[in-house]
Amino acid sequence: MSDRPTGRPRTIDPDAVSLVALRLFDDRGYDAVSMDDVAAAAGVSRRSLFRLFPTKGALVWGGLEEFAARLRAALDARPAGEPSADGLRAAYRAAATFPDGVVETTRHRLRVIRADPALDREGTPRIAGLEDHLTRFVAAHDGGDPADLGPAVRAAAWSGAAIAALTWWASSDEGRPEDAVDRALRELR
Amino acid sequence: MSDRPTGRPRTIDPDAVSLVALRLFDDRGYDAVSMDDVAAAAGVSRRSLFRLFPTKGALVWGGLEEFAARLRAALDARPAGEPSADGLRAAYRAAATFPDGVVETTRHRLRVIRADPALDREGTPRIAGLEDHLTRFVAAHDGGDPADLGPAVRAAAWSGAAIAALTWWASSDEGRPEDAVDRALRELR
Repeated sequence: MSDRPTGRPRTIDPDAVSLVALRLFDDRGYDAVSMDDVAAAAGVSRRSLFRLFPTKGALVWGGLEEFAARLRAALDARPAGEPSADGLRAAYRAAATFPDGVVETTRHRLRVIRADPALDREGTPRIAGLEDHLTRFVAAHDGGDPADLGPAVRAAAWSGAAIAALTWWASSDEGRPEDAVDRALRELR
Repeated sequence: MSDRPTGRPRTIDPDAVSLVALRLFDDRGYDAVSMDDVAAAAGVSRRSLFRLFPTKGALVWGGLEEFAARLRAALDARPAGEPSADGLRAAYRAAATFPDGVVETTRHRLRVIRADPALDREGTPRIAGLEDHLTRFVAAHDGGDPADLGPAVRAAAWSGAAIAALTWWASSDEGRPEDAVDRALRELR
């Protein structure tokens, strides 16, 4: 114990803080919870909390950026000759395979976003930044010019379906997110 | 002339002001144009401008609310036994049939939104508010529970495709918006 004189761990686990915060947001509503509430519930100082999460919004968005990064990497790893419908389903399944330790956090995160129109607003472009990547993927795999109507429309349809499946999973309170996404995109095909 | 002593018309046409504003935003970038710039270019006082459009954002969003209203009305008017794919295509075609006088304004509007991530953020929920309406439509027409995965996913796919088609039309600089939407949803089917 002598090496932890304050009784407080030296490093704070951002995932643990996120989970505490997102549970609070989900239970009481995002607007009703302050950063002070989060710090108190997580047992960290206000200062430590702000060092990890400069804004309340940052507590909500972190994990979705990792989702987008997994999706981009999975798309780039698909074999060249594969039809886009198969590649998109596999890539979305990989992206939606959240590590076990953050599945509950992700569920709260998606529920909080869904419940708060202002948050929904803030976050969409983070996912929307993927649009061009998806459109180029569809054009490359199905043939066609990424500037044409077809690839843009197919990419948007799949992206909308995948996001709807994740949102549905978060509210349905059962199963794994990747299974909901897989089922949705299989049906869409 | 005696009844217009200031040489200024008594009523200001909001559509004309919108067009002037959206052309400016499209040419110079939304952030680079002030409400004073808009007032000067439209030949109206700052006060009159703010009476019609309380915020700069209101200049951008007005027309999309009319689009959403047309879509809701068109969905509600579809015959009960029709498959949802046919009903959605017809309803989106009707919604995307902007009156001749606002087609150019709409094109600028969609280009401005697309170019500005912060705006894209603000507007999505206005369209996202339609999600439940679309999901219930799909469930009612195809059979199924609106709380299930399938209807939510199909509704989101069609909605994503229609929005992508409008965005594509706005950047492609040709044709009519309803034709792009119709082509997109016909292909999706």
